[in-house]
Amino acid sequence: MHAPRFHNTTIIGVGLLGASVALALREKAVCNSIYGYGRTEQNLRQAKERGIIDGYHLDVRKASENADLIVLATPVGMFRGLAEDIRGSVKKGVLVTDVGSVKGGLVPELEALMPDGTHYIGSHPIAGSDRSGISDARADLFSNAQCIVTPTAASDKKAADIIVALWESLGCRVRLLDPFQHDEIYGTVSHLPHIAAYALVNTVDDVSAEYMEYAGQGFKDTTRIALSSPEMWRDISILNRENLIRLIGLFKGNLERLEALLKEADTAGIEKEFTKAQALRKKIK
Amino acid sequence: MHAPRFHNTTIIGVGLLGASVALALREKAVCNSIYGYGRTEQNLRQAKERGIIDGYHLDVRKASENADLIVLATPVGMFRGLAEDIRGSVKKGVLVTDVGSVKGGLVPELEALMPDGTHYIGSHPIAGSDRSGISDARADLFSNAQCIVTPTAASDKKAADIIVALWESLGCRVRLLDPFQHDEIYGTVSHLPHIAAYALVNTVDDVSAEYMEYAGQGFKDTTRIALSSPEMWRDISILNRENLIRLIGLFKGNLERLEALLKEADTAGIEKEFTKAQALRKKIK
Repeated sequence: MHAPRFHNTTIIGVGLLGASVALALREKAVCNSIYGYGRTEQNLRQAKERGIIDGYHLDVRKASENADLIVLATPVGMFRGLAEDIRGSVKKGVLVTDVGSVKGGLVPELEALMPDGTHYIGSHPIAGSDRSGISDARADLFSNAQCIVTPTAASDKKAADIIVALWESLGCRVRLLDPFQHDEIYGTVSHLPHIAAYALVNTVDDVSAEYMEYAGQGFKDTTRIALSSPEMWRDISILNRENLIRLIGLFKGNLERLEALLKEADTAGIEKEFTKAQALRKKIK
Repeated sequence: MHAPRFHNTTIIGVGLLGASVALALREKAVCNSIYGYGRTEQNLRQAKERGIIDGYHLDVRKASENADLIVLATPVGMFRGLAEDIRGSVKKGVLVTDVGSVKGGLVPELEALMPDGTHYIGSHPIAGSDRSGISDARADLFSNAQCIVTPTAASDKKAADIIVALWESLGCRVRLLDPFQHDEIYGTVSHLPHIAAYALVNTVDDVSAEYMEYAGQGFKDTTRIALSSPEMWRDISILNRENLIRLIGLFKGNLERLEALLKEADTAGIEKEFTKAQALRKKIK
């Protein structure tokens, strides 16, 4: 499919991802005008001054009523309320997508909330970071990044194709996933690692916060994502909590296996567990 | 203190760290000749061909009998056996140190094993990586790295000063620690994170190894150290197992706290835990 074209795009939540979508859309000339909505006027004003958006509204209905593309880029916990706010005033034919890290449960609900003749197709570009403001936004954030698009059985096929083409035009390698499978996968390879990183840093605090200054690169890398926005990750964790509770259980099982081997001073058993992990980790660069 | 000078240095275990010590000693002209000992002749031959060492012996006694500086750079589980092997043949006045990640228990024992008139001073340069062979060795590996030196109450003050000056001459920022305190600190900021990284990767395997291909940068960073040598980390984990068992318990406590908050869908409680971790993690770059 050719790169899609939009007249008016509205970015709801102009942070790292929302602002980067705006910059990328502009660079690829995918749309004519880009409006923003957000909670903090100062941030929207800065985004306008930097040329990230053409204008903004502090009323989300006003911000989105003329859009033919709407991108939700707030913390995922706000998506439902935003969809309820805008559903009565959006244009016929509007495509709504998002950049959120949770899909299962949420996407079918948002899809059902959207009025007839409009379409909600969930997206998740794997391009976030521990940063969260517009100062780190960049047009090439999505270049060569994976992007998961999660149409449901109820989704309009053409709308889904346009959203796929949109992300491809921004440089993404797009894969389709069922929203619930998405959440099991990203619960495993993203949400659980965030839980582990936050818990690891809090464990240092349990022993002595002073020990942080002895940390080397291993600790820094392992806990980098504990720098991520607590608000954003609170929402993701709560919305994907059923998967996460099960995954934390499996993770604790692995820790307990290592703990038991250490208690028995089972050198060969420890090495076997580490070798298994090393071999699997080697599969990705 | 001025940079120390040695006539003959012997590196026991010519891997990433051992070979980097050799390259750094040579670059800083800290010693005249450098000999190597290791388990694999092919590796020693390569190290000689690359100019990392001047020669090698496959008999550790022969390799170390003329040395006035000996650096143990094998997996830490071999240190005791090596000290027993060389104690009868080392020169009077020899300084023995190491680059191992475990100190408590081990250092006092090795110190006691060394004959009168020789000195064992433990070192731990925080400069390892998930790599382990000579191909990644480099002379500037220690440049601006932390190095912990762990003299005991029984250590010769002058010998300890020379070892400190040695690491400083290779570019390290040296700190002194009691060997047992070293192990509590590095159990917390290094050994536990390794356990967490290995366990996290094995948790992905519990769910589906296929999910690895969906991983983004967060997963990659969090689990990079699961690429580390299983043999090396087996030894570290076993030798520091008392601290590690306690630390795994504290880590599980933090995971269980998050798990309980998720079960209660306690949004504010989750955010509070994440915010606490984020604030502490921000203290280091």
